[in-house]
Amino acid sequence: MKGWVGKLDEVAASARSHVCVGLDPDPALLPVADVLAFNRTIVDATRDLVCAYKPNLGFYEALGMAGLEALQATVRHIRSVAPGVVIVGDAKRGDIGSTARAYARAMFEVWDFDAVTVSPYLGRDSIEPFMAYEDRGAIILCRTSNPGARDIQDLPTGSGPLYLRVAELIESWNVAGNLGMVVGATYPEELAEVRAAHPTLPLLVPGVGAQGADVSKAVRAGAGRMLVSSSRGLIYASRDPDRYAEAAREATETLRAAINAALETD
Amino acid sequence: MKGWVGKLDEVAASARSHVCVGLDPDPALLPVADVLAFNRTIVDATRDLVCAYKPNLGFYEALGMAGLEALQATVRHIRSVAPGVVIVGDAKRGDIGSTARAYARAMFEVWDFDAVTVSPYLGRDSIEPFMAYEDRGAIILCRTSNPGARDIQDLPTGSGPLYLRVAELIESWNVAGNLGMVVGATYPEELAEVRAAHPTLPLLVPGVGAQGADVSKAVRAGAGRMLVSSSRGLIYASRDPDRYAEAAREATETLRAAINAALETD
Repeated sequence: MKGWVGKLDEVAASARSHVCVGLDPDPALLPVADVLAFNRTIVDATRDLVCAYKPNLGFYEALGMAGLEALQATVRHIRSVAPGVVIVGDAKRGDIGSTARAYARAMFEVWDFDAVTVSPYLGRDSIEPFMAYEDRGAIILCRTSNPGARDIQDLPTGSGPLYLRVAELIESWNVAGNLGMVVGATYPEELAEVRAAHPTLPLLVPGVGAQGADVSKAVRAGAGRMLVSSSRGLIYASRDPDRYAEAAREATETLRAAINAALETD
Repeated sequence: MKGWVGKLDEVAASARSHVCVGLDPDPALLPVADVLAFNRTIVDATRDLVCAYKPNLGFYEALGMAGLEALQATVRHIRSVAPGVVIVGDAKRGDIGSTARAYARAMFEVWDFDAVTVSPYLGRDSIEPFMAYEDRGAIILCRTSNPGARDIQDLPTGSGPLYLRVAELIESWNVAGNLGMVVGATYPEELAEVRAAHPTLPLLVPGVGAQGADVSKAVRAGAGRMLVSSSRGLIYASRDPDRYAEAAREATETLRAAINAALETD
């Protein structure tokens, strides 16, 4: 397995970790003012315990140009201190072919992400430009972790709910082997259904921690290639400027252990 | 009618125009190297002929930090020389509630767009933060203009194709009166269906010009509050550095006249 999926397999095995740390700088929660210094400290404190970092672009865009500069420097820092760790750009982009090509260039050539989250709503030609980067890839929204996931993703389609049809489409598009899916930990039954039908696709599983999902239920449901993602629950484990790095490490270690324990007792 | 929809009504009436000019800087097509100079020239040449400008963020992100700075300066330029014209940020964002709040802050407070395109896939809580800015608004993807639109948007749901269910949801969410929908000009039958069911919602109708839709068919199908959007067909009407401004003005005037003629003969 080459590309970002091979990189994921390697780091998951060597770090014995399915933990993906969401790097989401929220001014209301940050223990220090400097976003880049905060991210660097979190990365330095957790880099041997994780398979991936996942900055969500919304939080950086909300900080304007300075936020985007901090994002760029954060990616460079991860590349330098943790070159084996996967970097997922959580961007949830999705546009028509010609624009999707521009977004793919932005995500892979400007920001240097290994993989990027994208929306399936515009169909195959909106995903193809991301698939064309063979060493990179796209993680496509399937069944998300939020309450509103039900509004559209659960609509009946004649052969099961929409999210299962989307999962089938993603599998059928995955000729280059560089696609994955987002399935929220907050809905373990739906997660189990998707995993049963698609045993080898990498699953990005957000929703543990602040969103309140039961870790061991979710992990058993999604077992396999899996990035279990938490943001607020890890990086804001303490908001004490003198203790937040240590607290983030402890919270990450605790999540890693809980995931591994759930997988072993399976 | 207040907010961005009121602004649209006013400029559409005063400029007698439904034309939305897409400002999509593509290095392979630009007649001059400087994106900001190009955008300023296009805006200055067309500002009395349009109801809206629509920069697509993908093209600016692909140019890195310099592209994003050009976007910021472009918005400021439009505000200064064409304060009555609507600025749509074509961003197609869509994320869970807490992140959607960050994106709404980015789109309205950092970039200063009047309205922003968003994806419906994550449901109501992904849209609410945009609706909360009462003088701004969200234009939600319904039936897009690209070939892949069929893959997911046309799936049967038991009561019609998905895009019609999405349109109903958008109407039901529109308590603040600041939502609109994207429906591609390339599918005039679907456009007519959506318009018949939702006579007052603003429709952003891309796909005329380079994407090849029949203008008069699309315009008659979507008649009402409508932004008819073209990018490449207008801004790259000529790639001659000495003539592109004049050519963009001529192409915009021609599109405006074609739209108005189609509406009058209806």
